[in-house]
This record gives sequence, C-alpha cells and structure tokens, in this order.
Amino acid sequence: MTGDVPGTPGDVLTLIGSGSATTRSDLARITGLARSTISQRVDALIERGLVEEAHAGDSTGGRPPRQLRLHTEDHAVAGVDLGATHCRIALMDLTGQVIAEAEDPIRIAEGPVTVLDHVDRRVRELLDRAGRPYAALRAMGVGVPGPVEFATGRPNNPPIMPGWNGYPIPDHFATMSLVDNDVNVMALGEHRNAFPMVRHLLFVKVGTGIGCGIVADGGLHRGAQGSAGDIGHIRVSGHDDVTCHCGNSACLEAVAGGHALARRLTELGLAAETGSDVVALVQKGSTPALRLVREAGRVIGEVLAGLVNFFNPEVIVIGGVLARVHEHLMAGIRETVYQRSLPLATHELVIVPSRTGVDAAALGAGTLAIEHYLAPDNINRIVTC
Amino acid sequence: MTGDVPGTPGDVLTLIGSGSATTRSDLARITGLARSTISQRVDALIERGLVEEAHAGDSTGGRPPRQLRLHTEDHAVAGVDLGATHCRIALMDLTGQVIAEAEDPIRIAEGPVTVLDHVDRRVRELLDRAGRPYAALRAMGVGVPGPVEFATGRPNNPPIMPGWNGYPIPDHFATMSLVDNDVNVMALGEHRNAFPMVRHLLFVKVGTGIGCGIVADGGLHRGAQGSAGDIGHIRVSGHDDVTCHCGNSACLEAVAGGHALARRLTELGLAAETGSDVVALVQKGSTPALRLVREAGRVIGEVLAGLVNFFNPEVIVIGGVLARVHEHLMAGIRETVYQRSLPLATHELVIVPSRTGVDAAALGAGTLAIEHYLAPDNINRIVTC
Repeated sequence: MTGDVPGTPGDVLTLIGSGSATTRSDLARITGLARSTISQRVDALIERGLVEEAHAGDSTGGRPPRQLRLHTEDHAVAGVDLGATHCRIALMDLTGQVIAEAEDPIRIAEGPVTVLDHVDRRVRELLDRAGRPYAALRAMGVGVPGPVEFATGRPNNPPIMPGWNGYPIPDHFATMSLVDNDVNVMALGEHRNAFPMVRHLLFVKVGTGIGCGIVADGGLHRGAQGSAGDIGHIRVSGHDDVTCHCGNSACLEAVAGGHALARRLTELGLAAETGSDVVALVQKGSTPALRLVREAGRVIGEVLAGLVNFFNPEVIVIGGVLARVHEHLMAGIRETVYQRSLPLATHELVIVPSRTGVDAAALGAGTLAIEHYLAPDNINRIVTC
Repeated sequence: MTGDVPGTPGDVLTLIGSGSATTRSDLARITGLARSTISQRVDALIERGLVEEAHAGDSTGGRPPRQLRLHTEDHAVAGVDLGATHCRIALMDLTGQVIAEAEDPIRIAEGPVTVLDHVDRRVRELLDRAGRPYAALRAMGVGVPGPVEFATGRPNNPPIMPGWNGYPIPDHFATMSLVDNDVNVMALGEHRNAFPMVRHLLFVKVGTGIGCGIVADGGLHRGAQGSAGDIGHIRVSGHDDVTCHCGNSACLEAVAGGHALARRLTELGLAAETGSDVVALVQKGSTPALRLVREAGRVIGEVLAGLVNFFNPEVIVIGGVLARVHEHLMAGIRETVYQRSLPLATHELVIVPSRTGVDAAALGAGTLAIEHYLAPDNINRIVTC
C-alpha cells in the first residue's frame, strides 16, 4: 500500500498490518532504522490508536517481547460511489474489509447539497449500525460521474452533474475526503480486489459514455491535469458522419456509448433511452440490439487496439452497464484487438469482464481513502503533529 | 535517480552525490538509520571506491567531522546509440557528464559480432583517451533500432536488424550491460537532460518508422512485454487503401513514416529513398515534399490526439530524422492535436522538437547504465557481496 522501501512511519504501519513485523525488534531488523527511531514511531502510532501492543500469552522463558498489531476496531473509512441515479456506500476497515453497506436511488442532478447531505446521513447510519462512533471515520473516498480536479476535489465541467461544477465536495464533510472520477475509482477497486499482482491494467467503463481508468506500475495514472483515460472522444475510423456533443465527429462514445446505441435503436423503432434499456433489449433477444452491441464492441476494440500498442497492459477489464451483456460486447472487442494489435503485446493479454461488478466504484473509493490515510506523507503528518 | 524514501545504500550514495549529506551524521539524521547501519553502508561504499572520506581542512576547534564525497574519477559508463547506419558512443561519469565521445558510420545489418566488436573497441579507446582503465567502466547502456526484451537484452524479431534476433547482446561485453530500444533511451535522454522536472512525457521518433518512448511519473513505462510505445501500427482514419508490411492497412507509419513519404515522392518523380532524402528535399524547397511532411504531421497528430486524451502528458517531444524539418512537421501535428484533443488535456500541453537532438539516444543509454548501477537493488548486491 505504501512504498517499497521501509523506513517511514507509514511503512512501519504496513509491516505491522501485513504481519511481517510483530515486535519492535522485527521492525528495527527489517527497516534498518535505529531502535530509538522505531520506538518513537511506534509510540506515536500507539498514541494515535493505530497500533496496540500486548505481552504474548506464552513464554518459553525470559521476558517475552511485546506483540504489536494493527488496531482496526476504532477506525473506518467510507467508499462512496455516486452515479447518475444511484448512491452506493461501503463502510470499510483499514484492511479493506467491508463492515456495512447501503445503496439508494438518488439523482446526481439534484445537486451537491441534496446529494452530499444524503451521503453524510447514510455514512453516519452505517457507522451506527457497525457500532462505531463518527470519530472512527478516518477518511472518505468519493467517486463521481464526471471529471474532477483531484487535488481540490472539485468537479471540472461535468456534463451530467448540473450544479456541481467547481463545488468543493470535501468541504461538505467533517472528515478528510478524496474525490475522483468514477472510472478511476472503479479501476482501483478492480485492481486491488481482483488483480493485485498485475502491474499494468486498463479498466474500460462502457456506460452512457465511455471512459478508462489506468493502473500503471500498480498505481493510478491520472496524468498532468488528471484527465488521463478520457478515451470517449478518440476518433474512430469510418464514422465521420457521426457528430458528437463535444463538437467533433466520429468520437468513440458518439458511435459506441450506451446513449448512442439507445438512440440508434429508437431510430429503428425500438424504445430505448439509456444503456440499461439497450441491455434489457439484448437480454430479451432483440437481434438489432445484439447486432449493435457487437458492432460497438468492434469500434471500442479499434481504440483499445491502439492503446494496447501504446501502453502494453497485462489486463483489460470491461465494466459499466454494457458489460452486463459482456459476451456480445467482448466478442467484438476481442476480435478487433487481436486483429489490430501487435502480436508481442497481445499474446499474454487478458481481456475480461469486471469481477467486482457494481461494487467496483465503492470499493475503489474506500481503497483511495485507506491508501491516502496510510500513505507515508500523511502518516508523517499525523505522527509529527 | 533512486527512490524517494531514504533508507537504502543507493539512497546514501545519492544523498552524498547531491550534496544533501556531507557527513555520516548528516546521513543518520536525514535517513533516520542507526549510526551503526550508516557506518556499515558508508564503509562498504568506500571499500568499493564509490565514496571517499577526508578530514576537512579548516577546523573551528575540536575534531572536524570527516567529509564524504562521491568518488567519480574511478568510474565511467558508456552510452551506446546504434542506428541503422551509425554508432554513437558517449563515455560519461556517474553524474552524467560526458567525458569522451565518438561517432562512426556502421551498418547494423553487418550483424551483432561485427557491430559489437566495433563498440567494444571504441569504448576501450574512449576510456584510454579519458585516462581511465577498463576496470573503471561500471556499466553500459545500449540503444538499438528495434524491439528488445529488456530483461535479457535480446532483440525480439527486429525488422531492420538481420542476424540480431535473440542475440544476447550483454554477453558480448565484459561489463554489465543494459539494452533497450532506441526510442526508450531517447525518451530517457531527453527527459533527464531537458525536462527533468516533468512527470509525464512522450518522445515521438519520426524516422523510417514511427515509435514513442513513454515517461510516466518520471520513469520509463515499458509495459507488460516491454513493447509499450509501439505506435507505428495504430490505425489512422481515411487511409484504408494503404497496406502495411505488418499485414494490416492504414497503419500510422505506413502512411506517415519516412520510408512511406520517400516512396510517395518517388511516385511523384522525385528521387528519395529514406527519411533523410525527404528532409533534404524539404530543405531544398520542394513543394511536394513540404506538403507531404505537413500532411504526415496531421496524420501523426491524429494518433497523438488520442494518446493525449488517454495519457494526458505534460510534454510531447518530436525527434527522429524528420524532426530536422520540425517547423513543417509540427505545424500539422499541433493543428490536429489542438483540434481533436480535450481542452483540459491541451491547455498546458507543450509540443516541442527534441532539445538533445542526435545526442538523445547515447545520453539516454548512458543514463540507463548510471541509474541501474546506482539503483538500490543493485547497490544492495554490491554492498552485501
């Protein structure tokens, strides 16, 4: 969760949490830090209630060393997944275990005050249900369906979040909060839970729009302005007649997003407004819907083929509402990727539907909170303040 | 050059080299390591001739602490840039300063034994010229014009390197050697020398073919199989009639690479075989050549626009032989990137011609050698062996 090189208070915490070190001697030996440094750091962690120390029960003679363990009971984080029409919350302990969860229908278009008041109320109820005081909540992670300036937690011209542009989401909560776009937290949730050993992973969300979360060398790649992964407006070939709301033509999501597919089905006389409607039609056996989803897979595959050549990932995960009919979507994706990408980059490439499914975003948002809370810089601040 | 978190022998070396620590007390204070650990590591570095220790001249009373400094005189690395028809070598000290260099015309198609024998001879001559024994050569970096399995240093089906497929290049030298493809070492050379503070950078080489080196979070991103950045076969729109040697159609380099441009000029009755010939025609004021280069810029720009959306870099550097007429190439690139990429990703994006120019690859290969030699894992091995 933190760096590779032991030597900071955050690493001390990780070594204890993972069971790699159970005593102060272990910590000194593994990190090479001075005993006095270790003691200072362990004492600070104990004082903060993050670590507890107890004499071991059995002794084979002499005074047994005191055992250290992570004290997770007094701590919790909340992972919040805000979608266009839902709010999912996972209350988690510092090891990532879900201890309580909730899901409610709520429209993001109701605006930040209504939606975030709801989140705050639900998080407090979940803490009650788990028998923990509000003070146990150490951090929150929030995933929202639009671009966010990660450093400040403010949405940046989000197209489907009226009233949210520039709203300082973290200021709404009494607890330190991190805000990221939904695809980034989904990528993190999927990676940490389903593919923790994979170094380079792409999580492609095919919903109303199309976006991508990038895990590079085990961490989220957000890019210079935090806009990395915004693949919905990459140009696809053979669709210059399709105009996109962004002002360009032949954008990936204007051709293959859930909204685009629904519109084309409507033109064919089939009632569909959203990606979910498209999925319902496919599940009912509608041939035009099935054909459109497979063709959308080919178009998405064309873009992914280029990204496979560029990024050379080990795993591509397909999520979002259209992934509910992944057998049709993935057939088209795989067909094009294997045709257009370099053999060296595809012969061990894995393309799979999301394993964490609807939980990806809430788990990822919670993971964001945990990793930030345990990160060396943050713990340094905790220990020295 | 090494990790952010002090605590390893490699970091001790970096702290001394950067002047952040000049005494053992400094090192203990900055790293938090025990004095005994520091002494053990410093002694090992001194024994290896990497660090020297001397009493300071002036004293204000009491015994002055011994001053530590990096001992660079007894060390050197070689950065080797092998192209289709040239070999450039930079002999560098451990701080990255070039202490001797050489350039020779040699055809990579003469095969590994001839070419690598030449390299070995030249490196020994450069060491002689710099007054250093062969034993001073700590590592070599080699950039080659084709795909390489980085872990083993073996070229992997390189199209323009007959006889090199699978050849274990590092085995040819008495010194530890690292081998990477030319675009990766160029990206590293450009980043470390011209843009060291930039986190996310793309180096696009427009030569016979088209390739890209990726710097993500300050380090080279090679991807799962080391094939990351292979953008020459990404599909571009509107050129389905152009077939590529890879078997697909509309590949970027089949449309906009130096070889493709030369062929189209030949069809127009202008003698051109290589990217250099195209450059020469442009420099002579040939209108068809100029028009083709600008149009190639637009096509390259279409691919880069997608990569800007996906990767959100701070800087894109254009290098390779076609960059010699960068004013025409970059006009087309910028036009398309600014038209097709998301405003958030372009408003601070910098697109510039290479500053390190023909030196990029040799400097980058040398940097690869230095960073590997000073890397914690490697120094750990040195210190404990």
